[in-house]
Amino acid sequence: MTRFRLTVEYDGSPFMGWQRQPHGPSVQQAIEEAVHAITRETVTLHGAGRTDAGVHALAMAAHVDIEKPISAFRLADGLNAKLRPLPVAILAAQEVAGDWHARFSCVGRRYIYRIENRRAPLALHAKRAWRVPLVLHADAMDRAARILVGRHDFTTFRSAHCQAESPVKTLDLLRVRRFGTSIEIEAAARSFLHHQVRSMVGCLELVGCGKWTERDLKDALRARDRAALGFNAPPDGLYFAEAVYEEDRRNANSF
Amino acid sequence: MTRFRLTVEYDGSPFMGWQRQPHGPSVQQAIEEAVHAITRETVTLHGAGRTDAGVHALAMAAHVDIEKPISAFRLADGLNAKLRPLPVAILAAQEVAGDWHARFSCVGRRYIYRIENRRAPLALHAKRAWRVPLVLHADAMDRAARILVGRHDFTTFRSAHCQAESPVKTLDLLRVRRFGTSIEIEAAARSFLHHQVRSMVGCLELVGCGKWTERDLKDALRARDRAALGFNAPPDGLYFAEAVYEEDRRNANSF
Repeated sequence: MTRFRLTVEYDGSPFMGWQRQPHGPSVQQAIEEAVHAITRETVTLHGAGRTDAGVHALAMAAHVDIEKPISAFRLADGLNAKLRPLPVAILAAQEVAGDWHARFSCVGRRYIYRIENRRAPLALHAKRAWRVPLVLHADAMDRAARILVGRHDFTTFRSAHCQAESPVKTLDLLRVRRFGTSIEIEAAARSFLHHQVRSMVGCLELVGCGKWTERDLKDALRARDRAALGFNAPPDGLYFAEAVYEEDRRNANSF
Repeated sequence: MTRFRLTVEYDGSPFMGWQRQPHGPSVQQAIEEAVHAITRETVTLHGAGRTDAGVHALAMAAHVDIEKPISAFRLADGLNAKLRPLPVAILAAQEVAGDWHARFSCVGRRYIYRIENRRAPLALHAKRAWRVPLVLHADAMDRAARILVGRHDFTTFRSAHCQAESPVKTLDLLRVRRFGTSIEIEAAARSFLHHQVRSMVGCLELVGCGKWTERDLKDALRARDRAALGFNAPPDGLYFAEAVYEEDRRNANSF
């Protein structure tokens, strides 16, 4: 048996989310079925994160155990052939140790949220960004974002369905930058609560268009109450961008 | 009668191209029909360029004459409402002088061509970029691109269907830059021959993967013969990025 680490890009718009669902297509099911088509093995794919319906990934990390002897290179090519025409691509596959776990070994997760700040509908970025017609002040959003960085009880920014044991998380990075009409929000932490990024982005948008002050955001955080939330930003703009592992850092340092 | 200048973004993948065709959908027809739905007028839309099937636009310029009194703001909003769910968006509309012409007043056109240089299929950028699995040397492509800059007879890079009077054009800019796995090629000129950008990109790709030397590219240009062409890059990666007009420059200078 060999454990393979997979790096996966996907367009989340046609899926119910990453996780297998009884009532609709998921990225997990698509890849598990592609593995089955190649190996005839019924496998379980483990991901570093579980993205919601409509959320995308630039580089989701996952692992799967396979009995059949196959090289990582042939596995990636074979999966990509079987996944066609679904918008899921295996960017890389590599053999890893049997105790390497995509979810439990992951020490950092990074998301990117993309806003298109314009009145016109999105032709090229439909379902790939959140269109906000009101003028947003990205600098004000970036200043307000610093309120949320650090170790906090993020109950306000947590879905009612969140399964995490504790609402206390350490947010390492929350940065807002404007590139023309695009606004990019980057968030990094060891782990996030369910809906945390979309909830934070929803509140930052309120700050950006002047409906909320920094004080309102501080109060919402301190309230530790979901009812204090502005609102959840839609899934369309959210991308799982990176999963970080200790051994990647060690390998990077060994150059 | 008022002449309106429109700035249009579109995803070219579901269209036969910009220009109205008897046998399939076009961007021109979609916008003309949207104008008709608002004004009951049968109009002709004139564009700064005529993109091929599958080619996109970040900001195509066009104009249309309308009898019905309507503000530019309401026209843009109305067109966007009627165009839904087609991937065509009116980014801006403005009243212009009756002798302003999207095609004939245009003094500069800029295209961007996007390559994704990777083995894996494109999940997020399907139909929005050209996937090239062979490793491309963007620096070598950028050096070779300088051979094509300037005033040349571009017969080698011209489609058999090209309607331009002369094959002699002045290429103002041809630049190749790498951003991670993406390679972006930027081309600017007063005007281009039919298929010129895709033909130039096709040859630069041959240089990038080592199949062609700079000498081969020089010979191809000098041959002034379509048979000397490497090949046309596919339409998926091509974006009409900008149309330049004298009055925009004047307005920009008046700040």
